[in-house]
Amino acid sequence: MSEERILLAHGSGGKLSHDLVEQLFLKHFDNPVLLQLEDSAVVDIPPAGASTLGPVALQPRIAFSTDSYVISPLVFPGGDIGKLAVCGTVNDIAMSGARPLWLSAGFIIEEGLLLDDLEQIVASMAATAAGAGVQIVTGDTKVVDRGSADKLFINTAGVGTVPPGVAISGDRAQPGDTILLSGTIGDHGMTIMTQREGLQFASPLESDCAPLNGLVADLLDALPPGSLRSLRDPTRGGLATALNELATRARAGIEIDETSLPVREAVRAACELLGLDPLFVANEGKLVAIVAPEAADLALATLRAHRYGQESTIIGRVVETHPGRVVLQTSLGARRIVDMLVGEQLPRIC
Amino acid sequence: MSEERILLAHGSGGKLSHDLVEQLFLKHFDNPVLLQLEDSAVVDIPPAGASTLGPVALQPRIAFSTDSYVISPLVFPGGDIGKLAVCGTVNDIAMSGARPLWLSAGFIIEEGLLLDDLEQIVASMAATAAGAGVQIVTGDTKVVDRGSADKLFINTAGVGTVPPGVAISGDRAQPGDTILLSGTIGDHGMTIMTQREGLQFASPLESDCAPLNGLVADLLDALPPGSLRSLRDPTRGGLATALNELATRARAGIEIDETSLPVREAVRAACELLGLDPLFVANEGKLVAIVAPEAADLALATLRAHRYGQESTIIGRVVETHPGRVVLQTSLGARRIVDMLVGEQLPRIC
Repeated sequence: MSEERILLAHGSGGKLSHDLVEQLFLKHFDNPVLLQLEDSAVVDIPPAGASTLGPVALQPRIAFSTDSYVISPLVFPGGDIGKLAVCGTVNDIAMSGARPLWLSAGFIIEEGLLLDDLEQIVASMAATAAGAGVQIVTGDTKVVDRGSADKLFINTAGVGTVPPGVAISGDRAQPGDTILLSGTIGDHGMTIMTQREGLQFASPLESDCAPLNGLVADLLDALPPGSLRSLRDPTRGGLATALNELATRARAGIEIDETSLPVREAVRAACELLGLDPLFVANEGKLVAIVAPEAADLALATLRAHRYGQESTIIGRVVETHPGRVVLQTSLGARRIVDMLVGEQLPRIC
Repeated sequence: MSEERILLAHGSGGKLSHDLVEQLFLKHFDNPVLLQLEDSAVVDIPPAGASTLGPVALQPRIAFSTDSYVISPLVFPGGDIGKLAVCGTVNDIAMSGARPLWLSAGFIIEEGLLLDDLEQIVASMAATAAGAGVQIVTGDTKVVDRGSADKLFINTAGVGTVPPGVAISGDRAQPGDTILLSGTIGDHGMTIMTQREGLQFASPLESDCAPLNGLVADLLDALPPGSLRSLRDPTRGGLATALNELATRARAGIEIDETSLPVREAVRAACELLGLDPLFVANEGKLVAIVAPEAADLALATLRAHRYGQESTIIGRVVETHPGRVVLQTSLGARRIVDMLVGEQLPRIC
């Protein structure tokens, strides 16, 4: 019997989260789909009436994903837990190239929550779902006694359909591929952190919380088949952690250029004040796309044409050297290894 | 601005839960699938490659459902929160006649939980999933600071495929149909309640927590097409609430015979001691099936042949009179209306 206990950092999305997944969840929930460790699971729908369906390669595939949201405060500049709960799961499904269609919503409510506060959040979920083109089709509500939860937690799970021929995953990235980022980093995390610390800046911070399925659909429409290799949304653990996961999955190195990384001035100022690196700060409306080099310009133009990708940039490339490692070329010309987030930067950010 | 607040009874599965769903969730999440208010949502997978698929009626359909589990204590006779989280969602999917295939698992963990305790529960989930023939394919872990949750909450969502031609829902029950129950009532709820109260009985109580997808598959195999009308698992709010939901959905009356209801002696004793009616106590391994009258004997034999249905009985029938009402014929020959659960009998039972 060990006395080891769960720490906040086990939920950070960083190193300890990965250890927990690998040493506990994968040990017991051992199956090839979960082992992929993608943002969502892609599974084949078995044939319903065999004679009426085409070849196996054209069987419908669905993507399935879940996230629980425990963010504090419940409402913040740019969003609330309801908007976040819809966007987060929509985005996880979109990162497999799937078209998100249906969401479930599970509410865990602390006794005493104002009904009006709950209604505001439910209305926000509904509006966000409508904007993203998904339906909330099933749900559940549990109420726990006062002190057994903090106001409201929401779980969403989502199901989407994977278009025929689409195969997007971390292990498809190849040396030579180009890495794009759909906009500024750190907005969500620094918004939550400055809210909690009561900090004010000249230009107000706002969460980037947004549904990215439209952006992904545009990329799939625009790019030649097969040239969109990998997608990931850099949420908990930030861009650094997402790139490390991609490098590991691709068994290749990643090089990024620090000067290419878009960071809002207010985010930069808040990070400096609090001693944080925006590379490790959570985003909720950004994606990293790895594309074949010949498709990079078209991918960039496609992203920039979308309202949620106007500030997209090319941030680096996949390389053969240092497989599994992310290397940053700093603005001063130095090179440093960028690790996963270690420890917990900010609990309950999503 | 109203000062109305969420009460424990909003999570009871009874009257206030229904009001919350109808007045808040359905108001905002307005769509025809959610409006069905079945245990799971049944949706059509849109055609992937139109030319390769058959007629629309043969398009694959999936069932999708979610539940959060907040039970206290985490481990109890007959199960634990992990086993419950798998069975509960498997059963909700099975109640639409679907074959559950994939689960998601979302963990909300209070900082400080012993890793060994978490591992015991994860191992139990894995064993239960294997026993039920489902795979846990995607997941999420959040950790909240000490005091912001009570040890561990688990959300599971599930996806299953609905076999072609199967259409099972509350509104398909017709006057004349027979109502079957797959075994004793009140075992789960009274187990949890006596654990919390520290009560001991001569014959120990044990939760009935079990996956019912095998039972449903056997019914579908055995009965003539169309004769299995409705299925429901009487969880929160007990058999009384499940029957009221069925009567409402069917716009028909339901009559049940009190002497036919199987209740274990220890459950009866615990209910008497605590002043509770087993009709309102939660079950986690029982189903109510409404079948065409000519299929009743075959349905009963099929249920009894299964390990989870050995104590199945016919408990009543659907009638034309008193639509939406459940009437109980008591052992003394009196008739009384059985309402939904009003108020909260026992918080955090599942």
